[in-house]
Amino acid sequence: MQMVSTIKEVKDLVKQWKSEDQTIGFVPTMGYLHEGHGSLISAARQDNSKVVVSIFVNPKQFGPTEDYDSYPHDLERDRSICENLGADLIFHPTPEEMYPNDFYTHVDMPILTEELCGLNRPGHFRGVCTVVNKLFNIVQPDHAYFGQKDAQQLAVIKQMVKDLSMNVEVIGCPIVREEDGLAKSSRNNYLSAEERKAARIVSKTIFMGENIVKEGETDAQKLIAAMKATIETEPMAKIEYVKAVDGLSMRQVSIIKPQTLVAIAVYIGKTRLIDNFIVE
Amino acid sequence: MQMVSTIKEVKDLVKQWKSEDQTIGFVPTMGYLHEGHGSLISAARQDNSKVVVSIFVNPKQFGPTEDYDSYPHDLERDRSICENLGADLIFHPTPEEMYPNDFYTHVDMPILTEELCGLNRPGHFRGVCTVVNKLFNIVQPDHAYFGQKDAQQLAVIKQMVKDLSMNVEVIGCPIVREEDGLAKSSRNNYLSAEERKAARIVSKTIFMGENIVKEGETDAQKLIAAMKATIETEPMAKIEYVKAVDGLSMRQVSIIKPQTLVAIAVYIGKTRLIDNFIVE
Repeated sequence: MQMVSTIKEVKDLVKQWKSEDQTIGFVPTMGYLHEGHGSLISAARQDNSKVVVSIFVNPKQFGPTEDYDSYPHDLERDRSICENLGADLIFHPTPEEMYPNDFYTHVDMPILTEELCGLNRPGHFRGVCTVVNKLFNIVQPDHAYFGQKDAQQLAVIKQMVKDLSMNVEVIGCPIVREEDGLAKSSRNNYLSAEERKAARIVSKTIFMGENIVKEGETDAQKLIAAMKATIETEPMAKIEYVKAVDGLSMRQVSIIKPQTLVAIAVYIGKTRLIDNFIVE
Repeated sequence: MQMVSTIKEVKDLVKQWKSEDQTIGFVPTMGYLHEGHGSLISAARQDNSKVVVSIFVNPKQFGPTEDYDSYPHDLERDRSICENLGADLIFHPTPEEMYPNDFYTHVDMPILTEELCGLNRPGHFRGVCTVVNKLFNIVQPDHAYFGQKDAQQLAVIKQMVKDLSMNVEVIGCPIVREEDGLAKSSRNNYLSAEERKAARIVSKTIFMGENIVKEGETDAQKLIAAMKATIETEPMAKIEYVKAVDGLSMRQVSIIKPQTLVAIAVYIGKTRLIDNFIVE
């Protein structure tokens, strides 16, 4: 496995691989890898002859009051995880390599990003679209893998690729969970022992919501009310949102049907946790 | 020469060409081709084994009061010009093919586009960046050719390609002029006989400005004043701007030096004409 930090090194390798008719699978990450990322790398390993993982904490997708400076990192651990899962290349650029002083361009999509996480994180999805667009141009993957946990991010990236006719297939992979149900996230690391226990309410609410839908509930308001009531049983939890939206357009729906995305964002202490399910 | 109108047809051909190690030269146009476009196609023909010309009047780069509906077109004439110059493929999509109803993404670059043409054409460069980004993803060219007449467009596209690490080299080609100096433009077609005569003032002002600089003038204000005075000798001309800007950042400069872009936009009747020179 190789590890490089410049765009040129990646492009040179990719050029060589393309000339050898290798297929490229790509997993863009912000590092501090967990089993969720691991499942993406494994999926990429299965489908492609070369696997690239990027590790880049993208400043453009953090708001001024968010956790950019404290975002966890451990490159040596990440390297070992990637190597064990059979990745061929880690790309870990500096912010200056990705965004030199005279960097001016952005990619954005106001409509899909006005709901859910976009509402309380202005500029977040502009940062995501811009960095993913650039990473796709650098790595030129055949397939790119994203977790379903960040459901809105996945929808936004699929839309960007479709709109701009980019030459990559975007693949969403299922949420990977801890034994007690908590969705794996690098930010789980922020939770104290007490908060970690309280955080169970997030996945518990998702499983409960799934059951309500399975039992035939189609009224979005009733579902949301029941899910909110569940979260409110946990004194340490503060609801940011509980919403039912169309899985493609991210617009709120009043009737639950197949492809509806039911998504929640909850603060446990200062840590923001998200989780979701898609109606089958 | 082939002529296709769907993205899929272009991508299929490009895939085949790439597998044969062909190099691709690309000339994006809005059609109604003139010798300016011809020089771009010829440059592409010289440098590449395959040449693609796109003909697409891009609605996203026209403002609501601009000439989208009346923009001239003659596909049969364009076809013959492309064939004579040795192009391999014309891509002429419909607006619906490029922008289906659920198209949401845009590419933009506020800083470079606040000056010159961006100032009076809000949204214009957003439309240009978005369509060129998409066309580059469709055609996947090794080299793309743009005229120096649209100097700001050329700078904006070079910046976008650099910022987003796109895999194409953008090549600017010299302004092609009529015998009396008028820069070739599809919009020259709008001019009445009387206006056509009055339009000479545009290139005359550019040549005069170039001479002033050659004779040693470095004060941008003095240069601009002299150029404005020249335009004002023509009663049918109305100045939109006469400006000296940095050739990369498009920011106004007070001292003329190499790489300074001196650009003018002038209305002759209802027709907006642009011209420029870059200081050597």
